[in-house]
Order: sequence, then structure tokens, then C-alpha cells
Amino acid sequence: MSRDANGPDIQDVDDPDDPRLDDFRDLNSVDRRPDLPSGKGLVIAEGVLVVQRMLASRFRPHALLGTERRLVELDGDLVGRALPFYRASADVMARVVGFHLNRGVLAAARRVPEPAVAQVVENAGTVAVLEGVNDHENLGSIFRNAAGLGVDAVVFGSGCADPLYRRAVRVSMGHALLVPFARATCWPHELTMLKEAGFRLLAMTPDARARPLPEAMADVDGGRVAVVVGAEGPGLTPATLRLCDTRVRIPMSRGTDSLNVATAAALAFYERARS
Amino acid sequence: MSRDANGPDIQDVDDPDDPRLDDFRDLNSVDRRPDLPSGKGLVIAEGVLVVQRMLASRFRPHALLGTERRLVELDGDLVGRALPFYRASADVMARVVGFHLNRGVLAAARRVPEPAVAQVVENAGTVAVLEGVNDHENLGSIFRNAAGLGVDAVVFGSGCADPLYRRAVRVSMGHALLVPFARATCWPHELTMLKEAGFRLLAMTPDARARPLPEAMADVDGGRVAVVVGAEGPGLTPATLRLCDTRVRIPMSRGTDSLNVATAAALAFYERARS
Repeated sequence: MSRDANGPDIQDVDDPDDPRLDDFRDLNSVDRRPDLPSGKGLVIAEGVLVVQRMLASRFRPHALLGTERRLVELDGDLVGRALPFYRASADVMARVVGFHLNRGVLAAARRVPEPAVAQVVENAGTVAVLEGVNDHENLGSIFRNAAGLGVDAVVFGSGCADPLYRRAVRVSMGHALLVPFARATCWPHELTMLKEAGFRLLAMTPDARARPLPEAMADVDGGRVAVVVGAEGPGLTPATLRLCDTRVRIPMSRGTDSLNVATAAALAFYERARS
Repeated sequence: MSRDANGPDIQDVDDPDDPRLDDFRDLNSVDRRPDLPSGKGLVIAEGVLVVQRMLASRFRPHALLGTERRLVELDGDLVGRALPFYRASADVMARVVGFHLNRGVLAAARRVPEPAVAQVVENAGTVAVLEGVNDHENLGSIFRNAAGLGVDAVVFGSGCADPLYRRAVRVSMGHALLVPFARATCWPHELTMLKEAGFRLLAMTPDARARPLPEAMADVDGGRVAVVVGAEGPGLTPATLRLCDTRVRIPMSRGTDSLNVATAAALAFYERARS
């Protein structure tokens, strides 16, 4: 064990069964994984870049587990952080988490109370609203695209997966920890609330009768916009479609089906930022 | 065994070790999987929609393996197809392929000779050129986006993964079987060839000094375009960047890194179709 007053508390761990590593244990286990909301409800960041983003986010890690090499890479980010860094070999890490983790470092944080929808949209010009998006990779991609393409907040309607699940956080490149989000508590009432707050609700759909994206976005001009997307396959529910202002489609080649939901959302975010 | 003169040759199989199913065996096995180019080099389609697309493609399946339910769903597509349909339970299928396959049907086809680059770009207005894209999911997404957003052909430079690998085909929703593609044999010479054929080569890069996408695409006007994308992380090689006409960036929020390569490509395809 070593200790630097300006850095993390570095603790070497050789035994995969060491209870200090319990927050990182069995990350692929359906029942025991520590990032399940029904269990410990931890938020797990993987890899140097995502750990850096976690350190910059509202989720404060309480422990890290990683190799010496990753400790060196994170050196500057950990200055002034008095949290334990469990230093282990890649082999010990693999036995703890249950698979070989090629990113070499993990951080664990506890969840924090989530803001209300009204709060995250208060100063937003562009928001993404998701309904039934239950695939963690799609959720992660939507956060990454939202961050890159100027979306201020994400609102979860009913039926969405957990954006703080490890895979969603990883695919988002850590942006799930940084882009403000809130979950609807009275869905789809939140759509009415957004409308009353001056948002134009654009429902993305493959429906050929919908308005083409460039045209629909041009109409919004500088006003507030909510891009509303549903799950691949079923799409948005009829109730949600009725509450939206405009049905919007991405002009597509003949004979093709819809795009992936995260791609469709990215195109809408891009068109919004473009106009 | 039953036989309908107008449909497939339906053969019931109860034994997972039946050699008739060898082309579908061990699909997740690193060494033995039948879709490895170094092995049997088969092309495997999964699920009703992708099997339908394979039936419409240049890859002619020589056998199908599926449940009764999927056989019924594919009924109309199999009229006049004199190929064996091995009918099995979901359990037998799982034991053959090595995992539970929730799409319920597989088709196997042999590879066909691949066209030359000059051939696939001959009548193309928009092509995607990939360098170092070695992730099967990204490849699959790029094909899906290409199909949906009006790209006529895909050209593979060096370092790309196999677009006919099972996962790439699945993520592409079968479009990897339909969108014409060719592999460069003398990379990066093919870029010069494209240029001589009148294509404007747009190199996608996160470089802040590059031209914004809408502006760069507007310049092309109605001319031929090649959207050139590199792997996430390293991006395009310096040699490729030098051969391209214009470096193009997607306008992004401050403090964010690049988008996923398939998303960046989709935005370029969209902007092309838009203008």
C-alpha cells in the first residue's frame, strides 16, 4: 500500500476474492451484477476516457480498479482525489469482473437522485425524447450523438432501458454521465408539458406521409425542439404520435426499411444543428 | 420428408449431429465457424427479413435451417426454390449453431466472385470508401445506412473487416448482400482511379481545420462523390488524406470527440442526398 497526499490511495490487490473489489465483481452476471438498479445500483465506467468523463460528471466515483498502466495514464485526472485505486494485474481483474476487460480500468460510483423532467428541459433549446428504446447500445449511441450534435437534454418516456447500465455508459463514451437526462413519471403527460413550454414536438417515423426532415426542421426556425423517437420495429405509440406536433420522416431510398433508431435520431440532431 | 414441386424440399431433422446441418454448425466457434473466408467461406443470413434479402441478392442460398413457424412466414418467398429446408425445433437449432438463435431461421450461401472496384463504381453517383474499418457492427451499420440513404456502392480499402461475416450481415439487415461492394487490390491507388473517374473525394475527419460538411457537399453540387471514412480512433491514414480532394468535418459541440464511424458516414450520406 502506498499513499500520496495529492493522489488516490493506491492499494495493491492480488486475491480476486478480496472483498474490497466487490463493487466490481461479476459484471456480466445476470443476477449479481453491481450495476443493476435492483441491486447495488452502481454506475460503472470502463476505460480511461470514460473514467475521465465520470470524474467530470455528477457521478463521483468512490473506487477504481485498474492496472498500473492505466493508473499512470489517469495520473493527472486523479490529483486531489482521495479515493482508493485498487491496483491489480489484468489476470486478477479478469477473474474479478468475470471476463477479460481490455480497457484495463474501472470506476464505480453510486447513483445520485435524478432531476425532474421540468428541471432538465428548463434551459434547453433541443431535447431528445425516447419512448420504448430498450436496447442499451442504442441508448448509449443516442447519448453520444446527443453530446456531439448539440442536444441539451434527454427525456425518457415509458419502456426505455436504463441509461446508467454499464454497456450504455460504455457505448455512449461516457456521455450518458454528462448529458442531463430525466425520466418521465406520468408519461405521456410530459409531452404536453414540453408543448406548453414552447417545444415543437417532432415525431420521427418511417411513415411515407410524414414531412421530410429538412422541411420540418426549417419550419421550427430558432424555436425550441423536441425530437421524439420510438423503438425500432414498433416505433412510437399512437398516443404519443397524437400528442406530437409534426410527424417527420428521413427521406430514404426506395425499398429500404427504417434506419437504426440512434442513426435516425443523429440525423434529426444534425439537421437541427445545421439549421 | 415431404416435397412440394413449387417449394423447398422440407426435411425434418431431430438429431443435432446430422451431417446435413454442417453448414450451420458452431456459428460462434472461432476456428470452425462456417462463415470464415479461410474455412468454408459461407454467407449466413439470420432471420426472416435477412433471408428474404438474401433470396433477392446475388448470393443464392443452397440450404435453410429453421423452425416450422419461420417456414410458414417464408412460404411465399420460397415458391419455386428447389433447395432443402431443414425443419428443426428451436432446441435442436440451438445445439447445432451453439447458442440460442431467437430469429428462428438461417440460410447458407456460397460466396460468389467479387466484382472489381471499377465495375461497382461505373454507374455510381455516390460511393462510400472505407479504410481500416475492422469492426463488423460498424461495417453492417454502414451498409444499412448506405442502402437507406442512397449510396450506390461501397469500396473497401486496406484493413477492413469482412462484410460477409455473419454479424456484419445481420447488423446490415441484409443490405451487405444487396449494396454492391468491391475490395481494393492496389490500395490506395483506387482513390486515384476514383478521382480520374470524376469523383470528388471527401475525407471525413474530426480535424477542426476541415471544411464543414454542409459547405463541402454544396460545393460538389450534382457531381460524383466518394465519402471516405477511416476507423474510429486512428482515422484515415496520411497517405489517404493526401489523395483526397477535401477534408470534411461534421460540425460538433465543443468538448466532444468524434462520432461513431457509421454515424459520421450516415450524416455524410444524408447531406449528400439532401443537396
